[in-house]
Amino acid sequence: MKQYTSEQLLQQIHEYIGQLSYKRKPMGLYEPIEYVLGLGGKRLRPVLMLLAYNLYKDDVERIFPQAAGIETYHNFTLLHDDLMDKADMRRNKPTVHKRWNENTAILSGDAMLILSYQFMMQQCPAEYVGKVMEVFSRTALEVCEGQQWDMEFEELTDVTVEQYLEMIRLKTSVLLAAALKIGAILGGAPEKDAELLYDFGVKMGLAFQLQDDYLDVYGDPAIFGKKIGGDILCNKKTFMLITALEQAQEADKEALLGWLHVEDYAPEEKIQSVTALYNKVGVAAICNARIDTYYKEGLDLLEQVDVEPARKEELKAFVCRLMDRKL
Amino acid sequence: MKQYTSEQLLQQIHEYIGQLSYKRKPMGLYEPIEYVLGLGGKRLRPVLMLLAYNLYKDDVERIFPQAAGIETYHNFTLLHDDLMDKADMRRNKPTVHKRWNENTAILSGDAMLILSYQFMMQQCPAEYVGKVMEVFSRTALEVCEGQQWDMEFEELTDVTVEQYLEMIRLKTSVLLAAALKIGAILGGAPEKDAELLYDFGVKMGLAFQLQDDYLDVYGDPAIFGKKIGGDILCNKKTFMLITALEQAQEADKEALLGWLHVEDYAPEEKIQSVTALYNKVGVAAICNARIDTYYKEGLDLLEQVDVEPARKEELKAFVCRLMDRKL
Repeated sequence: MKQYTSEQLLQQIHEYIGQLSYKRKPMGLYEPIEYVLGLGGKRLRPVLMLLAYNLYKDDVERIFPQAAGIETYHNFTLLHDDLMDKADMRRNKPTVHKRWNENTAILSGDAMLILSYQFMMQQCPAEYVGKVMEVFSRTALEVCEGQQWDMEFEELTDVTVEQYLEMIRLKTSVLLAAALKIGAILGGAPEKDAELLYDFGVKMGLAFQLQDDYLDVYGDPAIFGKKIGGDILCNKKTFMLITALEQAQEADKEALLGWLHVEDYAPEEKIQSVTALYNKVGVAAICNARIDTYYKEGLDLLEQVDVEPARKEELKAFVCRLMDRKL
Repeated sequence: MKQYTSEQLLQQIHEYIGQLSYKRKPMGLYEPIEYVLGLGGKRLRPVLMLLAYNLYKDDVERIFPQAAGIETYHNFTLLHDDLMDKADMRRNKPTVHKRWNENTAILSGDAMLILSYQFMMQQCPAEYVGKVMEVFSRTALEVCEGQQWDMEFEELTDVTVEQYLEMIRLKTSVLLAAALKIGAILGGAPEKDAELLYDFGVKMGLAFQLQDDYLDVYGDPAIFGKKIGGDILCNKKTFMLITALEQAQEADKEALLGWLHVEDYAPEEKIQSVTALYNKVGVAAICNARIDTYYKEGLDLLEQVDVEPARKEELKAFVCRLMDRKL
């Protein structure tokens, strides 16, 4: 049985997505789709799907359509989320509503969602169609729920850590989990293992997102790839901010709330002051402890998957690298 | 074998859709969906699906989920189209982006599209899933293409009749056709009959839309239900306008183009003047001839469906009533 490295799988799915052609008319509908899918990205979800499939079978090319489907779905959510968030740039390029217009972003996004279903169905073995579609639709709906919570939380200042974790579970984790589960289902995995891989994905998704929240404050700008403090400047309700608001003493909480409402400020000063408050509360340690817990719980779930340990090494190594950890 | 009247089917599917509950959280996502599906409407697509199914089988309740699915899809398109067209009202109620906001309209619409797929899959017999989903996804994509052409045509003054007909085929007809075809597939119809019913739906869809275009100019306001001349006032590129622009003598064409560009006018005067130009060109007769052709071609296709003639009477009568014609 052939085992692929994640790099090989990334290369293959990247080529597969790259050769898909959207030459249908009207161009005004399909050009933005080609543009969005051509922006690249880590192709994390299809790679996870292929890695899960490769735990059981080695003809990974059989599920390239489903892998492209989950990536198309993910890119659809980015397209519509960027429109709702009025974001101008994505991966250093103008977003669709900026480069074209809002109606194009709405309609091309709708078409991408339909295309993702077409891919998901394409050459899907009859015995798995029901399960695959059930997981995919439920997950797609949950991602919408996560985005709705995210938008609603923007208007609130009393979001709890539990509410925040549930929001990121829905908005981020379940799609990673679904990628793994669909890969497992298509590979013929027993129900129990498909479920374990799903739960592993949820834990890892939470760990990734918290790590992202952490790195926005404490990351090395050279490695992080984004500017440090971006979340602080736009008052984003991350795990860091919510935890600080929950745990800070009254005076520090007041100071933090003050920074949320200041209209006119020097960016560097705001970042430094808020970070100082985070330091005082000890948010970093709290966040790292959570990440650690999720990460370990995740690996423990993977451990239980009934597949020869050597065969799980690649998936494990892939996730460790993403978390920038040693095995 | 039990044969239902279209009124009975309408009543049943109306109740089925009415008892669906969207009590999931977040309310901000699901309330607008319940609102849109509760606005009513003729439930034309589910009734057509049930009528087609009832040509072959009588346990119509088996396909209520699929009938609800096509109605949910249709209502999703209305929701997003209203947003793109900046329409304030739908069925005498504020549209979702007016009652809530634009982001809600985008995200609740996305969720409706996903829900329509869930309905379509729900209890769909394994043997038909592939075919049903193939027709549904292809059609859903074509409807997006139709909407894109429609928006692009707004910016053009040289749209041809052929381009217009292709646009309304995509935007309107294929969904009626797909409703019939999916009903037939689920009823176990032979491929050939499912195809004939699809083509019958396309023809009837074209006839409906042209009739709608016609009635905007020549309809009886008491029966039409909308104000006469609405399309004329907003320069909508209907079959009437496009035909008039194609067929008018130079001076009349100039006069017509003039009315398209006048900024300041008395509504009644614009309607009367444009109608007078339509009369001069003889647009009514041209339009009626087309409607007649599509209508007859449609009935001819239905004739060829290999089902006992008596059994097809209800579907035939339903379509005749919609077209306000005698059998």
